[in-house]
Amino acid sequence: MPTALSAALDAAMPLAATLFRRLHEATFDGVGITRATYGAGEQAAHDIIAAAGDELGLERRVDAAGNLYLHARGKDAAGRPVFVGSHLDSVPRGGNYDGAAGVIAGIVAAVALRDAGALPPGGVTVMGIRGEENAWFAAQHIGARAALGTLDPTVLDGTRRLDTGRSLAEHMAECGFEPDRLRDNRPLLDPRGIAAFYELHIEQGPVLVERGLPVGIVTGIRGNLRFREASVAGEYAHSGAVPRRLRHDAVLAAVELIGDAETEWARREENGEDLVFTVGELGTDPAAHAINKVPGTVRFTVDVRSHDAAVLSGMGEFLRARAAAISERRGVTVDLGPSRGDSPAAMSDALRDRLAAACDGLGVPHIDIPCGAGHDAQDFAEVGVPTALLFVRNPHGSHNPKEHMEMADFEQAVRVLAAAAADA
Amino acid sequence: MPTALSAALDAAMPLAATLFRRLHEATFDGVGITRATYGAGEQAAHDIIAAAGDELGLERRVDAAGNLYLHARGKDAAGRPVFVGSHLDSVPRGGNYDGAAGVIAGIVAAVALRDAGALPPGGVTVMGIRGEENAWFAAQHIGARAALGTLDPTVLDGTRRLDTGRSLAEHMAECGFEPDRLRDNRPLLDPRGIAAFYELHIEQGPVLVERGLPVGIVTGIRGNLRFREASVAGEYAHSGAVPRRLRHDAVLAAVELIGDAETEWARREENGEDLVFTVGELGTDPAAHAINKVPGTVRFTVDVRSHDAAVLSGMGEFLRARAAAISERRGVTVDLGPSRGDSPAAMSDALRDRLAAACDGLGVPHIDIPCGAGHDAQDFAEVGVPTALLFVRNPHGSHNPKEHMEMADFEQAVRVLAAAAADA
Repeated sequence: MPTALSAALDAAMPLAATLFRRLHEATFDGVGITRATYGAGEQAAHDIIAAAGDELGLERRVDAAGNLYLHARGKDAAGRPVFVGSHLDSVPRGGNYDGAAGVIAGIVAAVALRDAGALPPGGVTVMGIRGEENAWFAAQHIGARAALGTLDPTVLDGTRRLDTGRSLAEHMAECGFEPDRLRDNRPLLDPRGIAAFYELHIEQGPVLVERGLPVGIVTGIRGNLRFREASVAGEYAHSGAVPRRLRHDAVLAAVELIGDAETEWARREENGEDLVFTVGELGTDPAAHAINKVPGTVRFTVDVRSHDAAVLSGMGEFLRARAAAISERRGVTVDLGPSRGDSPAAMSDALRDRLAAACDGLGVPHIDIPCGAGHDAQDFAEVGVPTALLFVRNPHGSHNPKEHMEMADFEQAVRVLAAAAADA
Repeated sequence: MPTALSAALDAAMPLAATLFRRLHEATFDGVGITRATYGAGEQAAHDIIAAAGDELGLERRVDAAGNLYLHARGKDAAGRPVFVGSHLDSVPRGGNYDGAAGVIAGIVAAVALRDAGALPPGGVTVMGIRGEENAWFAAQHIGARAALGTLDPTVLDGTRRLDTGRSLAEHMAECGFEPDRLRDNRPLLDPRGIAAFYELHIEQGPVLVERGLPVGIVTGIRGNLRFREASVAGEYAHSGAVPRRLRHDAVLAAVELIGDAETEWARREENGEDLVFTVGELGTDPAAHAINKVPGTVRFTVDVRSHDAAVLSGMGEFLRARAAAISERRGVTVDLGPSRGDSPAAMSDALRDRLAAACDGLGVPHIDIPCGAGHDAQDFAEVGVPTALLFVRNPHGSHNPKEHMEMADFEQAVRVLAAAAADA
């Protein structure tokens, strides 16, 4: 790294702690951090970041969906900027870093690159994105998708905020934005005009902690295949009086299916396939079950995730085939119900290489890591923007007040990000 | 069968339809039959059976717990009577036959034996038993256990009727009985004074229907081993971000345990062991689970039943060993919680032989059949009374309004019962 950039990063770095502190002061709810999507907490965060941009001399604008852009202009005013961004909302009683760390990293990097005269030709745009979390509305990545023209417009009126019961469009309008401009899927940003999209985010799993490493370079964002309404219909019967061969036990059928899926998961993992499988909700019917009744019904959810669309569809086929075979043999009906899925999002090989080279140049130990959670980055990747996602170690998971990031880890990640962005 | 007894049975048989009709008229609730333990419906049934006893010239008495005895005196007034009985209460919205069929069978058999001059020397006592069902109080077989001195006296004040909230002792007293006489476990009946106890009951499972047979001779009443509060404690985590090796998935641990138990069940069954295994209740925590969270807790119940106390304890050991191994390997805590159990009750070989001989003599096809549900008969067996239980085919299970018994099947069973009782 050039000495000038290194010195500029040293000089800019204290900004980060200041901004994290301001965000915490404005949005701590007594237990955790609450920055409601298109609500008071998110707006407070945008106000703090916007004010910082003004102080730092960055060019500021806001789009129709309320996304904030702070731009450090490069030598070529007409050139394609490098974007660095993440979201500024949080789940209720969440932590201070999920989302905000990526925006603050962008500000520090942009200012340091500018002050070192190291900006890429098209400059750097820091993007503070709206509404990434799906904790408030039954929709996610609202700001990113609105900006890119990929937001399903039916969610504007079709989903209501969990706490207020009012629609997304109402909340957007109340915050001063223009939901009506989002109804025809016209992008607010031209993907072809973006040189690269970098997102820094705390890891939401424990892999970096387990490996003792500050950062991970995401290989891809897993897609998913979800069954929200899977069920088994068997037959209630007396648990003492009905012999094994005459039972149609819904629990044993579900247990067989889930056990088989775990075996298949292990097999595919040994085979080198990327896969996670979760039955997060499972239950007999409290209105009908009893300790002394053979269970007649059970409901469950299935969440399958993989980088590889073929693995997702393969697991879907596996589950459907096993459901049919188990139904037949046990005389029950295993019904997986409707499925929904998001496609996996590939990260840019070129950007990953740049991040890895930056790590190596700075002596920052790193690994490649799959990403299983949704992030704004995937929406940029989906519309063809070269995209990369850099994880920072976090010991306590996210979406809770204990979420944590060491500033030393954050600083290493910001240096890597700045070095990679300079190279665009 | 002697011609006289056969003719007397033909003559007495119409009594049965009359009594079933009276019971139905008095206790039909618009949907099913409701004869609340120590409540209006049970009392109405006792009144109908008592009145019939008076009409038929049987000697009547009622004990301190409200059990009804109708006696047909034999040649030896001091001899030990043969008891034929069952209960007269029902679950809410149950059927007309569960329990009552055994009392009505006793009346028909007693009258026919008397009229044919075929009573055993000590006569026949028809017993209309109180409070067998556990649907009303958190206690079962109340009347039988009170009569035999095996009722846990703490239930008198310690359990409240689900619908009224008043105690068992209050309800007993309100019906005119003497709960205070039950507090010291003094038996109201001397088991040594009973030559035999026969119970006729509808089968509560589908085996006789499946086999196309009217009656089954019960080989023994299964004991049970129950875990009401089994649970797994794992760790909630992000379903996309946490890899397989770092998960502590409570559902997968429970699934492994239950799947292993089913395999063990099949193995023991192939080995000729009597066993049923049921997980009737199972569920993740609705307050904490989600489709996108690795499940951190699951609760379930286990109900194991067998004729063989060694099989029950063997399954208990198997489950505990598997729970420990699964806890260790998966980094979760599988806690089966406290267990409770009832011992298996052996039926008398001599009485079973008598019933089988009676079936063969009458040309009634029959099988030996295990009994998985609780019955008053088990309490008589437990205190050393030679006991037998005769099942009558029933296509729709019990404890519901669709419970059904063909009168032709019932009549064959009554003939078998009378022939066996005559032989005492």
